[in-house]
Amino acid sequence: MQKQKLMINRERLKDELERFANFGRTEKNGVTRLALSEEDRLVRDYFCSCCEELGLEIKIDDMGCIYATLKGTENKAPIVIGSHLDSVKRGGRFDGVLGVIAGLEIVRTLVDNGIKPNIPITIVNFTNEEGARFEPSMMASGVISGKFDKKTMLNKVDLEGKTFEQALNASRYAGDEANRLKEGSALLELHIEQGPILEKESLSIGIVECVVGMACYEFEILGESNHAGTTPMNMRRDALFAANHLITEIRHRLGGLDSDLVYTIGRINAFPNIHTVIPNKVIFSLEARHKNPEVIAAVEEIIQGLPQFSLNEDCEIKTTKLWDRDTVWFDKDICHRLEQSAQSLGYSNKRMVSGAGHDAQFMASVLPTAMVFVPSINGKSHCEEEKTTWEDCEKGVNVLLDTVLTMLSE
Amino acid sequence: MQKQKLMINRERLKDELERFANFGRTEKNGVTRLALSEEDRLVRDYFCSCCEELGLEIKIDDMGCIYATLKGTENKAPIVIGSHLDSVKRGGRFDGVLGVIAGLEIVRTLVDNGIKPNIPITIVNFTNEEGARFEPSMMASGVISGKFDKKTMLNKVDLEGKTFEQALNASRYAGDEANRLKEGSALLELHIEQGPILEKESLSIGIVECVVGMACYEFEILGESNHAGTTPMNMRRDALFAANHLITEIRHRLGGLDSDLVYTIGRINAFPNIHTVIPNKVIFSLEARHKNPEVIAAVEEIIQGLPQFSLNEDCEIKTTKLWDRDTVWFDKDICHRLEQSAQSLGYSNKRMVSGAGHDAQFMASVLPTAMVFVPSINGKSHCEEEKTTWEDCEKGVNVLLDTVLTMLSE
Repeated sequence: MQKQKLMINRERLKDELERFANFGRTEKNGVTRLALSEEDRLVRDYFCSCCEELGLEIKIDDMGCIYATLKGTENKAPIVIGSHLDSVKRGGRFDGVLGVIAGLEIVRTLVDNGIKPNIPITIVNFTNEEGARFEPSMMASGVISGKFDKKTMLNKVDLEGKTFEQALNASRYAGDEANRLKEGSALLELHIEQGPILEKESLSIGIVECVVGMACYEFEILGESNHAGTTPMNMRRDALFAANHLITEIRHRLGGLDSDLVYTIGRINAFPNIHTVIPNKVIFSLEARHKNPEVIAAVEEIIQGLPQFSLNEDCEIKTTKLWDRDTVWFDKDICHRLEQSAQSLGYSNKRMVSGAGHDAQFMASVLPTAMVFVPSINGKSHCEEEKTTWEDCEKGVNVLLDTVLTMLSE
Repeated sequence: MQKQKLMINRERLKDELERFANFGRTEKNGVTRLALSEEDRLVRDYFCSCCEELGLEIKIDDMGCIYATLKGTENKAPIVIGSHLDSVKRGGRFDGVLGVIAGLEIVRTLVDNGIKPNIPITIVNFTNEEGARFEPSMMASGVISGKFDKKTMLNKVDLEGKTFEQALNASRYAGDEANRLKEGSALLELHIEQGPILEKESLSIGIVECVVGMACYEFEILGESNHAGTTPMNMRRDALFAANHLITEIRHRLGGLDSDLVYTIGRINAFPNIHTVIPNKVIFSLEARHKNPEVIAAVEEIIQGLPQFSLNEDCEIKTTKLWDRDTVWFDKDICHRLEQSAQSLGYSNKRMVSGAGHDAQFMASVLPTAMVFVPSINGKSHCEEEKTTWEDCEKGVNVLLDTVLTMLSE
């Protein structure tokens, strides 16, 4: 007979998620908890009090990240579980915080069951994952992993002109660089999917193989402004009609590349943007994401060829590459363990990619890292409607717990 | 032998245009002279001093319009010549002011040549034609002709919160309602074309038959916002791609209607307009102009049918009519006289329409009205590069003078 698996406490998990949501809860049951805001400071205080109650050792690094460690019986690099406690403005109750509370719930389950792990277990809260108050996103994990320059980040300012450094000091969560996460047996990040795939396929668990690479460009279409009433159609150089023509061409050329490719024109601005004036300039962004670098390369080749595309509207096309990032593959062994855990628990699951960025993608260069997704109802996130069923939250944490147990028992 | 025609003085006309441009001249040789600004007040003072020097009688109406009249030997309704002295921000040296100075130059020519007209000649400056400081444009002529409500107009505010009434009183050009232009033998407005047609066809004079009718709509495309990285292409309701699809359809349907139809999407805004978020809403304006009401009706029928257009992007289309205006036909007799004058002076000319609005279109319901256009280099107006050759300016004023003389001699 198979040994009864250790499971987490769904009610306690749910209660804790709701309690954390009290810090910055909005009228419509969402959360506004910008990085290093008063709400963020208070939720950190509460998180630390939970950890202290469990007898965990708390360390803070120089970017304000919190590490709460359950000692191991052996001197091994810790298994790290966590995510971020900050949110976007009017965001949801699950994004980020679920991954931190997962760590808390796993440690509570171990402690409750008298399990003294041979490997230390560390719960982590990464500062400013969202970048909603201080750009860029994934700021602290970016600094820790050497992707971002610390001094540059400390000088980032919010809309009120306050620097990240000022906010960090004011929060009293400025710690020691020596405490940064530098090594570990594993980093496990549980997160909501923020997309519609798991729900659509009626699956509970996504084993995230990678965070997809992307490229982001800006297009500038240059025409000529003239009076909308006095300029015959055949004498116009209408930048908006040219942009319309170009976007149609972009959709045509990118549409056939690969069914997993996603591309978005999220931002568009016309100038002077007056209804009686023919636009002389249109600027729009175009970003594309795919796990396969060859597909991204094909996208970039298409984009770079577009300034030669002949527009009937006699306008000029300029393209500027804003930035790109490579696909980050997660640790194969941990992915396999997570998948085995999901299987053994009888949870429906699939391997998938993450189209969104996460702290885990930066930390993957520091320690063996992997992620688990749970379904987002209607694919919604970064909004007050953001929701994952309590059952799926529970399943996600159980998968992490099971994987931790397999690591501990080795 | 044909009698030598009376001609205006080109150098004096040019000097006066440059002198008027000193009131608000910009670094790049344009003009910023917003309605009832300090620059406008000073140019009005200068204009009045010129008129007083000529012995004209000056009256001011309750909207600040200035009427300067050379007495006639008979008690007849005046021939009115004029336009407006206000400009847009960083506008040109010709738009509006040319039509006022034309009146001044014509009166000067009559006075210099000892001609005592049997019909009074009135030079008019209409207040706030541009609507650049206080919307709407053609404000004073709109009130005088009964199109706009005076009280509503007096309460219009500029960007600094000052009302039109306050600005009018501060300018000391608030006069008497009894002085409004209520009747006249004719109103002649000389104006720059603000379009490229005369220049392209190498013509000096446009006899304006009408100001074209127009209809202006707003489109709202409603989709769904989702994360640009996590939402597969086939699960998106992208409002920007839908707007792009719709604009292509609009161009297709309107493109075949009539070669003289002009239509413009001058304003477009996407929401939330963030490069990593699929737009959930796009709003754009669409305005169309044509002299034939049947063509405008066909445009409106097409627009009103568009919400039923099936978008692949699964977004909703809403249309709102913002406003329209009917085509205003100018006085046939005066148009004929102006054409005859241009012919007899040997100036190349054609009949044309005005796609832009002018005070004359409102005043046409008050007294027999017509307009003459002179070429705009590169079709440019409402910008510092706005230019009409001195020769064409001279020709335009000569056409008006000749037509005035034909009226006087009757």
